[in-house]
Amino acid sequence: MKKIAALSTVLLCAFTLNDIKIVDPQVEAEYVRKLYDVTLTQSDCYEWLRGLCKNIGNRVSGSPRYLAAVEYTRQIMDSLHLDEVRLQPVMVPHWERGTMEKVRIINSPSLGDVDLTAATLGGSAATPTFGVSGNIVEVKSLDELDALGKKVAGKIVFFNRPMDPTQINTGNAYGNAVGQRALGPSSASKYGAVACLVRSMTLKNDDVPHSGGTKFEDGNQPIPAVALSVKSAELLSKLLKQEPDTKVNIRLDCKEYKEELAYNVIGEIRGSKYPNEIIAIGGHLDSWDIGEGAHDDGTGVVQSMAVLQIFKQLNYKPLHTIRVVLFANEENGLRGSTKYTEEAAKSKTEKQLAGIESDGGGHTPRGFNFDGENALLERNLKQLMEFKALLAPYGATDMDKGGAGADIGRLKDQGALVFGYKCDSQRYFDLHHSKNDVFENVHKRELELGAGAMATLAYLLDKYGVK
Amino acid sequence: MKKIAALSTVLLCAFTLNDIKIVDPQVEAEYVRKLYDVTLTQSDCYEWLRGLCKNIGNRVSGSPRYLAAVEYTRQIMDSLHLDEVRLQPVMVPHWERGTMEKVRIINSPSLGDVDLTAATLGGSAATPTFGVSGNIVEVKSLDELDALGKKVAGKIVFFNRPMDPTQINTGNAYGNAVGQRALGPSSASKYGAVACLVRSMTLKNDDVPHSGGTKFEDGNQPIPAVALSVKSAELLSKLLKQEPDTKVNIRLDCKEYKEELAYNVIGEIRGSKYPNEIIAIGGHLDSWDIGEGAHDDGTGVVQSMAVLQIFKQLNYKPLHTIRVVLFANEENGLRGSTKYTEEAAKSKTEKQLAGIESDGGGHTPRGFNFDGENALLERNLKQLMEFKALLAPYGATDMDKGGAGADIGRLKDQGALVFGYKCDSQRYFDLHHSKNDVFENVHKRELELGAGAMATLAYLLDKYGVK
Repeated sequence: MKKIAALSTVLLCAFTLNDIKIVDPQVEAEYVRKLYDVTLTQSDCYEWLRGLCKNIGNRVSGSPRYLAAVEYTRQIMDSLHLDEVRLQPVMVPHWERGTMEKVRIINSPSLGDVDLTAATLGGSAATPTFGVSGNIVEVKSLDELDALGKKVAGKIVFFNRPMDPTQINTGNAYGNAVGQRALGPSSASKYGAVACLVRSMTLKNDDVPHSGGTKFEDGNQPIPAVALSVKSAELLSKLLKQEPDTKVNIRLDCKEYKEELAYNVIGEIRGSKYPNEIIAIGGHLDSWDIGEGAHDDGTGVVQSMAVLQIFKQLNYKPLHTIRVVLFANEENGLRGSTKYTEEAAKSKTEKQLAGIESDGGGHTPRGFNFDGENALLERNLKQLMEFKALLAPYGATDMDKGGAGADIGRLKDQGALVFGYKCDSQRYFDLHHSKNDVFENVHKRELELGAGAMATLAYLLDKYGVK
Repeated sequence: MKKIAALSTVLLCAFTLNDIKIVDPQVEAEYVRKLYDVTLTQSDCYEWLRGLCKNIGNRVSGSPRYLAAVEYTRQIMDSLHLDEVRLQPVMVPHWERGTMEKVRIINSPSLGDVDLTAATLGGSAATPTFGVSGNIVEVKSLDELDALGKKVAGKIVFFNRPMDPTQINTGNAYGNAVGQRALGPSSASKYGAVACLVRSMTLKNDDVPHSGGTKFEDGNQPIPAVALSVKSAELLSKLLKQEPDTKVNIRLDCKEYKEELAYNVIGEIRGSKYPNEIIAIGGHLDSWDIGEGAHDDGTGVVQSMAVLQIFKQLNYKPLHTIRVVLFANEENGLRGSTKYTEEAAKSKTEKQLAGIESDGGGHTPRGFNFDGENALLERNLKQLMEFKALLAPYGATDMDKGGAGADIGRLKDQGALVFGYKCDSQRYFDLHHSKNDVFENVHKRELELGAGAMATLAYLLDKYGVK
């Protein structure tokens, strides 16, 4: 059996053997093992997440609970005996869902009056008290709406494109479908529609609506915009085929308030050799106002803080500054990220070396995406493949060129090598922006394995630097 | 960016490019894509599993429900218009849990009488009506018990070794700990213990007991043997440190009945070119008598049948015979596997070419283990690496030497190249052999992606054969 095993190893490692430049892969493999051992036996990240989800809950920008989350995570970082913990002030939008989000079929001969299962989209306009009613125009895409143009004036546009189930990575399926939610209502407004319905962004065939942000751009007037559960969208679509005259009444009392003061929460261990070279690690602290923001992005928040805790537990003294940034307002404005990156750009002393973002949920690790300027990537590719080999025994086997994330990913523009943590995507959009994104749907070991992968990448980036 | 992308591709594919022997990898990649498209949009495997779990439920050997599962799966295969569907009779043991499984602390000054959360182990002896009581000797291993030897006579042995949380693959952690359940009670009996308690095999710190089989070998008399939930095991262990005289009373009314007739359920599409060369695919149809046997091994059962359905849907005519075998009695006797492999060995005409087993749960795919005789593996290794490259885009990235499974894995002895389907292991032992192994804990897409991986491997083995 040895011969086979050896042959197999040679085949599988052929690429690695040619390219390993790390001084002593054996030594690094042992240290990575230590990082994981500590993560899997001593990390508090799961209990931190329980506190964030169960004692605070969801935390949309502008809400008092967002500030509770700021204080909660500040206290956690304070307890880690870091070199610095601080709050970075930033003004954020303040939109509230209100208490009324009803979509009712009002004139069906066959069904009578039926409530559909709906969730107002963040950024939606409210309706008058007795709602807005109208006939429905079902479309599958923005292009289809453009083709109809002013024909939808006075009507309600219904975007009903499903996510593509044949995509293996559900993030790609989301990416191909989310335009109808993010930009559809604005486009419907442009053509004179009085409201917009959007099929929920999920691959699960259930009756749970998924909210999310919508933007009204180019001076398009905000109109009422609502997500329907998949089952409600399918029902409505079927009904429209039989009864094209179907009307719905939509009643929403969401409201846009004045902007509020919020904060990015920042904690760091200062570099012993290159204190001004920053490896930033983070997720976003805000969430939508449904569920508990567990996978989006409580897991990224606690995994990021876990990296600092793991380093402390191992008494690892980084060469570069390891900085955790918990971003405000990712969901509906990216103000936290804008503030952080602007301040970083202004700094006369700091260099943004690298960034790691976790904002794709807390499921079982698959690896990392990396991104950066072309020359930077070329210089670092071999080293990244060495890191990949060290992460592979832990199931984090992917190291691919790809988007890093909405917050830290932006440091790419300042010359940083940026990474997006990738985990298994199958369950994420079952939960995303819905009432089911709760602590109970996060698995302790899956969460910890992600923290271990992030700590490993941070350690390797710190030790070997960025070329 | 193109240069980077190209460089990356070259680096990542260096191994692949040197070794690809498949006539046209592009053509195969397109066909694999079709296999997955059909699986993700047309497979009935999730609904089949719903029926198995919800309309039948668990199905321990010897139970009427096992025969219901035989009929249910036979009807499903019948509906697929296969070339043959048949039942292979086999006698199986018939053990019943009964209605009493109590473990009570009976003499604690601090706690008073406390019930522990317990599940009788399959193969356990019953107790007298008022139970068996005794002092407790806690050990962590079979070796530790051997060192104590006859000192445990008249006492209750308590195996309390946790699964190792630092193992990344929880199957390895299970493998390192399960000996205390499978063989511990027998060993305790040998030394004169009156009963045996075993910590549940799980990494989750909860109050759910996990059953499973235990064997009394070498003439050791069966004694009462019970699994404790992790929380109960920890409580008892803590109590024993403070109150070493702690006694428990154990009452069990399980019973071994006479053997019953059962069946392997077999369905096949006959090979157009090599009808006597068999590619066997399967899981086991029996389960333990707690929960619904969803992941263990309902998922393997429906994924195996899905392979036949997918081939039919694509009108794929295999060269070799593709045979699904749903095995009887994997959990407590392996009689189904024994019968099937004996009959196969007796056959004058059939050649067992390859086998694929799915018995590690239905979570997100990670790939396959392969096993076989040394020379066979050497001849096929390159081809397996080509298959690996074709499966990788679907997340089934592993193709490693390793055990294939308890049922089909035995075909290795008849010269078959055998494979064990590998999926993400993090959640499996939260559920395994417990009341939580239910349909609701199976994810539709994860299940389907596994069926797609198995269909792909079966297709490639059929098309390219085994060298």
